[in-house]
Amino acid sequence: MSNYDKLTSHYQTLSHFNHAQAMLGWDAAANMPSGGSEARSNAMAELSVHIHRLSTQPQLEEWFGNAEQESLNTEQTASLREMKRQWQQATMVPEDLVQAQSIAGSKCEHAWRSQRQENDWTGFEKNWKDVVALSREEAKIRGAALGLTPYDAMLDKYEPGTTTASLNTLFTDVKIWLPELIENVLEKQKSESITLPSGTFSTATQKALGLEVMKLLNFDFDRGRLDQSVHPFCGGVPTDVRITTRYDEQDFVQALMGIVHETGHARYEQGLPKAFAGLPVGEARSMGIHESQSLFFEMQIGRSKPFISHLSRLSAEAFNAHNDPVFAEDNLYKIYTQVEKGFIRVDADELTYPAHVILRYEIERDLINGVIEHTDVPALWDEKMQAALGISTKDNFKNGCMQDIHWTDPKSNKITHNYKNGCMQDVHWSDGSFGYFPSYTLGAMYAAQFMSTMNKTVNVEAAIQSGDLSPIFQWLSDNIWSQASLHTTDELVKRATGETLNATHFKKHLEERYL
Amino acid sequence: MSNYDKLTSHYQTLSHFNHAQAMLGWDAAANMPSGGSEARSNAMAELSVHIHRLSTQPQLEEWFGNAEQESLNTEQTASLREMKRQWQQATMVPEDLVQAQSIAGSKCEHAWRSQRQENDWTGFEKNWKDVVALSREEAKIRGAALGLTPYDAMLDKYEPGTTTASLNTLFTDVKIWLPELIENVLEKQKSESITLPSGTFSTATQKALGLEVMKLLNFDFDRGRLDQSVHPFCGGVPTDVRITTRYDEQDFVQALMGIVHETGHARYEQGLPKAFAGLPVGEARSMGIHESQSLFFEMQIGRSKPFISHLSRLSAEAFNAHNDPVFAEDNLYKIYTQVEKGFIRVDADELTYPAHVILRYEIERDLINGVIEHTDVPALWDEKMQAALGISTKDNFKNGCMQDIHWTDPKSNKITHNYKNGCMQDVHWSDGSFGYFPSYTLGAMYAAQFMSTMNKTVNVEAAIQSGDLSPIFQWLSDNIWSQASLHTTDELVKRATGETLNATHFKKHLEERYL
Repeated sequence: MSNYDKLTSHYQTLSHFNHAQAMLGWDAAANMPSGGSEARSNAMAELSVHIHRLSTQPQLEEWFGNAEQESLNTEQTASLREMKRQWQQATMVPEDLVQAQSIAGSKCEHAWRSQRQENDWTGFEKNWKDVVALSREEAKIRGAALGLTPYDAMLDKYEPGTTTASLNTLFTDVKIWLPELIENVLEKQKSESITLPSGTFSTATQKALGLEVMKLLNFDFDRGRLDQSVHPFCGGVPTDVRITTRYDEQDFVQALMGIVHETGHARYEQGLPKAFAGLPVGEARSMGIHESQSLFFEMQIGRSKPFISHLSRLSAEAFNAHNDPVFAEDNLYKIYTQVEKGFIRVDADELTYPAHVILRYEIERDLINGVIEHTDVPALWDEKMQAALGISTKDNFKNGCMQDIHWTDPKSNKITHNYKNGCMQDVHWSDGSFGYFPSYTLGAMYAAQFMSTMNKTVNVEAAIQSGDLSPIFQWLSDNIWSQASLHTTDELVKRATGETLNATHFKKHLEERYL
Repeated sequence: MSNYDKLTSHYQTLSHFNHAQAMLGWDAAANMPSGGSEARSNAMAELSVHIHRLSTQPQLEEWFGNAEQESLNTEQTASLREMKRQWQQATMVPEDLVQAQSIAGSKCEHAWRSQRQENDWTGFEKNWKDVVALSREEAKIRGAALGLTPYDAMLDKYEPGTTTASLNTLFTDVKIWLPELIENVLEKQKSESITLPSGTFSTATQKALGLEVMKLLNFDFDRGRLDQSVHPFCGGVPTDVRITTRYDEQDFVQALMGIVHETGHARYEQGLPKAFAGLPVGEARSMGIHESQSLFFEMQIGRSKPFISHLSRLSAEAFNAHNDPVFAEDNLYKIYTQVEKGFIRVDADELTYPAHVILRYEIERDLINGVIEHTDVPALWDEKMQAALGISTKDNFKNGCMQDIHWTDPKSNKITHNYKNGCMQDVHWSDGSFGYFPSYTLGAMYAAQFMSTMNKTVNVEAAIQSGDLSPIFQWLSDNIWSQASLHTTDELVKRATGETLNATHFKKHLEERYL
């Protein structure tokens, strides 16, 4: 057996344990009663230990060394590259640092839950100090191993190949035109009147409506399901993708678009090539590309006028409210494109969202590179929030720098080598980490660039209008889903769109929709 | 660390992988779409291999040898005994025999699905020959290792300590009085008129009713759930017990009593002692004792008049049919105690069920011990069916010896060391094996004997009537659930009832209910 074959077999074995882990995680979020959590945590921790052991097995080094001398075709070369990448990610950080991070992160996160409510920066800062210090140590070790700056090494966990240099260029561009665009849109929307949903929208009906919309989006129900959980996410495995949502019986709007978003993640997973099932090269390319698919579904398709026309019809039917002005196309479109300045990233609309992300990017970049200290964060947050959205977070820590747990419990180095869990990031909030935030806005930009290219060969609007969206999905399948991790992110985007990522298409998309 | 502690830690590690396996099995039955099955099978097979590797790890032999010299208290001694028992069960049969059985079993089972429908004994016989031969080989190896006859060694997998000698005594007793009792009851019931359910009973309402009944039976919803699957079963882990049922919208009767049955399995699991969680000594005692708990719930409590009075009230409320004669106490009681001679074991009532089991016991005993050949089975089946119930299965293989898959695919030696999966036997039909059948009737006998003793100190009827059944559950908890595998089966029963198992109480119970 060649060394390449040995590696292939080893990573397929690993994928079976990852399958178990993914399903236990989904079940814990979607089904498990509270009394089951301790034994489940222990079982999942044991699986993690086993997965880590397999991922860092001593003979792998030799196999990789030998396999690189073997004669491989293009796909095998890509497969070897991705196996090696996961192996390096798994072995790069010493076990004792991972453990120290896990302990510091859990402590910080646990206290953060009440500290945030009490706006207790002083208390939080005491724990967070250690989290930041340990993350800096991790970043240094990763940087040394990869020949990158500390923060670039952290970016590499989520967005292989993405650098501070490229992000600076992309985000500086956005920062130039975004504030004015926001002001202009707010001015334009000022006079618009919207009828907001009121009354009771039963969970059962919302779920039935969600399933209808998933059908419209060609979700493969033979290889996936829709369930409920506190935090919506996309989990499971490519042959059995489990998406979840949460329902508010006062308002159907958010759950419905949430399902569209998760369906985007799900169809990417369902569309990954079977030929590489269980292998790193057959996994989703990156967090940003994963988010590009959910945002393509949510923002490019889901909030388009012809799609909202479907939502209008289907929801009026579901709730048996044909003459209710809430469900009118125009009104629904206004609801789904309403822009508002706010403190909280997760509540932000499409237009103001990048401002929240860029602010975090600039702060975490400088924090990890040692340019600023953790005590500088609240003031910087206030300053950047003022500049971006004109709102102050002075002394308002809970709606400022303490709002995201991303920076509180950076445990994710344990799981980031496993992109199969990539689409689970929403629920794995507490497993987030420094270097993750840019993926959100990269995803939105990729999505806009994909749509711009797709429009050259596919009549997207007509496809959505007709209710047969398959030409859209065929393009995504050909250019993104079926390509999995065969190419680097840059190359994937270049092959799909003819150019590397830039903010032009994103700007154009926002202007066309909101101005 | 003492060798005893090393073993304890090892079996706790094992339990985490068993947790994963149990949950994946439940999910496959309750949730998984069909497209997910191949990857799931691969993941579960990989877990099985890993569990087997851990269960047979070479250093265990030394640890057991040393631990037996260490100074242990009574509970530790019991714990060591049960760990050793599982280790022996896992190591006793050579891997290549297990594999050969798995291949022959799968082949036989797969063909059986259509062969049974086509009544094709000749076709079935060709595959079954190998299954029987391999099971005989297994039984010989087990017998040699344990110093038992081949069939006793197979019994030991499910009912440790139970022997052919004791079963012969118990079942001979039953065979003396059962046929006449059946005839007398049939004669008595002849003139009874029953109103059978008709119309539509929605799944949602049946489920709500089932949950009500589970509440009445003190099911701990903080540590378990009710779901749906094609074959009802009880799965999961003691901290999170997953029971399932299947609903027939034409008739609510079967699903409702099925839930009572599975709740019995579930409460045993939920009642196992936390102090021994994850250890063999903390698991359910045997298949027969597990069945005794489900049958205690279903037969001793569930089909009692005061409990049926609750079912009458709750179901009439649920279906909003207060004046419907179907739901009248008397009528429901008649439905649930109707006796009928039939071919099919799984459809049999409480009274005729033992006849089906004893017939199978006698045949499989002689088959495994080499007293008869597999080609003798159809004629023997017909003869014994004539004697027991007066009905002929001549040339009617599909309703005769081909009805049960228990004998078709005896894979269970892979999982029997794991009693945590014990209560999953209903869905693991295809994992059943020679030696399993007696457990059903042993369970019914244990249940009757427990009730007979309980009645001396607990006013069972009054407790059921009052709707507060906790005194009943307290007795079961004290005497059965909390005792897990601390004692041998015989000792457990003696401690609980003051005598070893005998058929007296079972006979008395049947006579009182049916005559």
